[in-house]
Amino acid sequence: MNIKEKFGLKVKSLREEKGISIEHLANISNVDRNYISDIEKGKRNVSIEIMEKIIIALDFDLTTFFNDKIFKK
Amino acid sequence: MNIKEKFGLKVKSLREEKGISIEHLANISNVDRNYISDIEKGKRNVSIEIMEKIIIALDFDLTTFFNDKIFKK
Repeated sequence: MNIKEKFGLKVKSLREEKGISIEHLANISNVDRNYISDIEKGKRNVSIEIMEKIIIALDFDLTTFFNDKIFKK
Repeated sequence: MNIKEKFGLKVKSLREEKGISIEHLANISNVDRNYISDIEKGKRNVSIEIMEKIIIALDFDLTTFFNDKIFKK
C-alpha cells in the first residue's frame, strides 16, 4: 500500500467511525466532496494544507491521526 | 504558525540534529535542494508523497515525525 492509499484508508475509517457521510465531511472541511471521495480511494497526492483541513474536520490532530501502525516503519 | 511552517521547522530541526546539509538531504530523499530549502522556510504546500520521501530520508516514520507538541491541538 502506498502513502496515498494509507492516508485514504485512514480518512475513510475515521469518517465511518464518526458515522458521517463524505458530503458532510466535505462541508465541514471545506474540501470538495469528489476530491474527498478520490482521497479515500488513494487516488490523490493530497497537500499538507488539505490534509490538515480534513484531519481537523474529523476532530483529530496530526499527532493522533498518524499514530497508527499503518504509518509506522 | 501555519501547517507549512510547522512542517518546515520540524524538517529543519531533525536535519540539523542529524548534522546533515540540505544538499545531502536532497540527495538521499531525491527531492530538489531548492525545494527542500523552501519547505524549511514554510513556503511550500508539500504533497504527501514528498512529505513521506523526506521523512523516510530523515530515518523517521510518519508516526514518530508527527509525534511533536507543535502538531497537537
